Amino acid sequence: MPEVTHQDNDKKTKKELRKLQRDVGKSKVQEAEAGQKAVVTLIGENGVLAATDAYGVLPLCQSQFTEGPKYTELRDLSNESNINQNVWVRGRLHRSRMKGKLCFFILRLQDYRIQNVLSVGEQTPKEMLAFVSSISKESIIDVFGRVLKSPVLIEGCNPDTIEIHCEKVFVVSAALPTLPLQIEDAMRPDDDETTLSRVNQDTRLDNRCIDLRTPVNQAIYRIEAGVVKFFMEYLTNAGFVNIHTPKMISAASEGGANVFRVSYFSGSAYLAQSPQLYKQMAIAADFERVFTIGSVFRAEDSNTHRHLTEFVGLDIEMAFKNHYHEVVDLIADMFVHMFKGLQREYQTEIQIICQQYHSEPFEFLQPTLRLQYRDAIRMLQDAGWEIGELDDLNTPAEKFLGKLIKEKYHTDFYILDKFPLDIRAFYTMPHPTDKGYSNSYDFFMRGEEIMSGAQRIHDPVLLSERATHHKVDLEKIKAYIDAFRYGCPPHAGGGIGLERVTMLFLGLDNIRKTSMFPRDPKRLTP
Amino acid sequence: MPEVTHQDNDKKTKKELRKLQRDVGKSKVQEAEAGQKAVVTLIGENGVLAATDAYGVLPLCQSQFTEGPKYTELRDLSNESNINQNVWVRGRLHRSRMKGKLCFFILRLQDYRIQNVLSVGEQTPKEMLAFVSSISKESIIDVFGRVLKSPVLIEGCNPDTIEIHCEKVFVVSAALPTLPLQIEDAMRPDDDETTLSRVNQDTRLDNRCIDLRTPVNQAIYRIEAGVVKFFMEYLTNAGFVNIHTPKMISAASEGGANVFRVSYFSGSAYLAQSPQLYKQMAIAADFERVFTIGSVFRAEDSNTHRHLTEFVGLDIEMAFKNHYHEVVDLIADMFVHMFKGLQREYQTEIQIICQQYHSEPFEFLQPTLRLQYRDAIRMLQDAGWEIGELDDLNTPAEKFLGKLIKEKYHTDFYILDKFPLDIRAFYTMPHPTDKGYSNSYDFFMRGEEIMSGAQRIHDPVLLSERATHHKVDLEKIKAYIDAFRYGCPPHAGGGIGLERVTMLFLGLDNIRKTSMFPRDPKRLTP
Repeated sequence: MPEVTHQDNDKKTKKELRKLQRDVGKSKVQEAEAGQKAVVTLIGENGVLAATDAYGVLPLCQSQFTEGPKYTELRDLSNESNINQNVWVRGRLHRSRMKGKLCFFILRLQDYRIQNVLSVGEQTPKEMLAFVSSISKESIIDVFGRVLKSPVLIEGCNPDTIEIHCEKVFVVSAALPTLPLQIEDAMRPDDDETTLSRVNQDTRLDNRCIDLRTPVNQAIYRIEAGVVKFFMEYLTNAGFVNIHTPKMISAASEGGANVFRVSYFSGSAYLAQSPQLYKQMAIAADFERVFTIGSVFRAEDSNTHRHLTEFVGLDIEMAFKNHYHEVVDLIADMFVHMFKGLQREYQTEIQIICQQYHSEPFEFLQPTLRLQYRDAIRMLQDAGWEIGELDDLNTPAEKFLGKLIKEKYHTDFYILDKFPLDIRAFYTMPHPTDKGYSNSYDFFMRGEEIMSGAQRIHDPVLLSERATHHKVDLEKIKAYIDAFRYGCPPHAGGGIGLERVTMLFLGLDNIRKTSMFPRDPKRLTP
Repeated sequence: MPEVTHQDNDKKTKKELRKLQRDVGKSKVQEAEAGQKAVVTLIGENGVLAATDAYGVLPLCQSQFTEGPKYTELRDLSNESNINQNVWVRGRLHRSRMKGKLCFFILRLQDYRIQNVLSVGEQTPKEMLAFVSSISKESIIDVFGRVLKSPVLIEGCNPDTIEIHCEKVFVVSAALPTLPLQIEDAMRPDDDETTLSRVNQDTRLDNRCIDLRTPVNQAIYRIEAGVVKFFMEYLTNAGFVNIHTPKMISAASEGGANVFRVSYFSGSAYLAQSPQLYKQMAIAADFERVFTIGSVFRAEDSNTHRHLTEFVGLDIEMAFKNHYHEVVDLIADMFVHMFKGLQREYQTEIQIICQQYHSEPFEFLQPTLRLQYRDAIRMLQDAGWEIGELDDLNTPAEKFLGKLIKEKYHTDFYILDKFPLDIRAFYTMPHPTDKGYSNSYDFFMRGEEIMSGAQRIHDPVLLSERATHHKVDLEKIKAYIDAFRYGCPPHAGGGIGLERVTMLFLGLDNIRKTSMFPRDPKRLTP
């Protein structure tokens, strides 16, 4: 670490600040570890910079100064007001190259890549170019220079219409010279057909905090935040209350299989596979409409493109008055609100992702297509798929059905309604007249299930009967059944997998692309 | 279960519907289990009700009919447009009493309690009054009747200016006749000095889905949702990205004590005590500003009024340019936005809670008071409290300081800045010049800590040094340190306890009042 002159300006007067600024301007040049010049920069209350030199490694930022340069964000650089102005910017050194008396380098942050030019001159000795071209890729640097319109479009940059003619370059945080993966490789499409190297998924995930810097990952997690935003926005406006349910539970409430066990002081607890019991208790407790967002845990040894052992559940539960379709319609509307919001507010991000992964835009209808399960089976049978009336859909059948529906109805989003009773959870309300069927539904995107839901049994007697029929131990679900003994309105709901919605909206092929730090049977790190 | 005539109207034409309606009107009266009359109600497309009788137990709602009565919500009943109108309403039977040829009962939902009057007449036989007064408390019932202005204010009701003159009463979902706790007892203040019974905390928590029906609990969890809403709203507008971090982690990242162990297939995992590593990785990955909301787990055997083993963390992490106060100021602003929003949009709920718990309104300043830790210690010492310069604040010292600050500055919300280095986590950035202190801060509400935060060390060399100084095993935190080897901007953040913010904003005395299903060393249920 370089030795640094520390100053705490918290309580300095303007006069003292001006003096300090002059002092720093005079003599605070120090030698840094690497033999580079360490420079303390300081800016006074007028925004005038007083630095001792034009380049070097800055001392570790320990918040020495409350005042400092005013920075311009890369995303704002091409604004007309910044053209021909001197600005300070901070970003990563994406790459650099020397070319005679010139040094070109790209400053990157998120999806922004700005060309910088440094040319030998009176204020810019040759050593400065050598210094800049020696900075390791991915280092965080500060640049001071003039924003100019470029005479030509600059390939690979965004914006590609401007460049910075640099006067000062400082290293804020240096990266190791050898990177475990190259950002430029990570930015290449999976199906890139050149011989240039690409980065495989495990290398990406092992070095996630470099991998996540790519424009496509920056876009994916912004869109994922958008999914949550529109989910909450719609439901909050519709009178839903955002609740929080415990993840550590005393008994494996939904049957007992596939549940993680936790050591809980001298006893044991389990990790909740869903907030099912708790969101239904909130309905029995008069909240009427609730949603909850939180981690859910599945101890399934499934190593597929769409299973995780931990994911984010967006759960909904709602009391209704006459028919569970009141709930189905509301949830369908919520999704439409979400899809429209994403396509309206995240078009730039969607484009970035489509470019790298070549996915098709997401299509949906208004109102949402709702098919009876029975009719979906018939569509499959008519197309030659071997499946029985009351059989469950496996993944290939789901995908094939998705294709048939897309061909016939031109939508990637649809609902299958009234599933066979026997293939649903014990708490699913049986259909009133259609024996063997139930008041349950799945929502699909691009032929994959993203939400499973149902009218729930709110009568403790029928609930016990159905649990017994499913061979669920009544003792273990006593708390669940008891919740309905003191009056409960008819209700329905569903559980949405956040990562699946993001994956399928964007047409991605693996759920590990939409989970920032995915967990599966083989991965617990980073 | 009563035998029911089921009809699925999903695909009926208008003509068929009208026929069905006539049929139902003619002959669908059936005897229910309890000897009560079971009645199928049905409404046609014109909103005209066709019911066979005026009272009874409805068959279990299995969504037999897509059409049904249009219900008015209790909260809208006193709107001028509903006065002198016939309405259908659904709610709970709060209590009932017979008085000669009259039966009075209160229909309740959330904070609304509506007086209903049933008087013997041509359409209303004496048996109907007997039936209604025999309905067990807390049952969900449907009422049809005329909304009338009451000549006098009706004590205990809300709104207290109207009543419903009933014509029809049906039971939708019956409660057991004996309740484990009485809602009216649960609605009494903790410090009620009458001899009337109250409900102790364990009874409440053991029967949470009844306890949560009280107006005060309805209000608390709506306000808690408001805390989250304003937190997200402010940060989203300030460019923060909502991320999700894993709860199952491979190593106990923050030292190793107080962590829950999970069986993970053939190995072990741990439950994250905070999203610290992950939110900092998001900063090292160029997200610049992130927040995350999720469960955090603490295996501390603390049985206090403010500790839980599982709670909801509202976590913030943000890159800054010059000084960590950029982050402190933003977080303080966020809280002010939250407090103002709560006081503006949740005044009714706040009043309900203050009435039951007699708490004082929450006071805060603009800008937020920020004191140096050193000066806070001096305030305590001057007031006769024995504490050393670099000592940590224990709970009584915190509370006493809160009192002193409230007297002097008239605020319940303040920041202590620059804590002694040795009492903070190893990843806390040391103060640049003030030896023994650090760039760290706590936020307080009513003399209790609700957020702890700091500038983090973003340099891997200094981070390793500090970890070693704290005797943290470097091998166990390798992934954490490695995250800073490839360039990371200076950053700071904090972790907020949601339940504590709600508790202290409302002046409540126990965190179990603001956790819907609390977890502590002795409680894992419901």
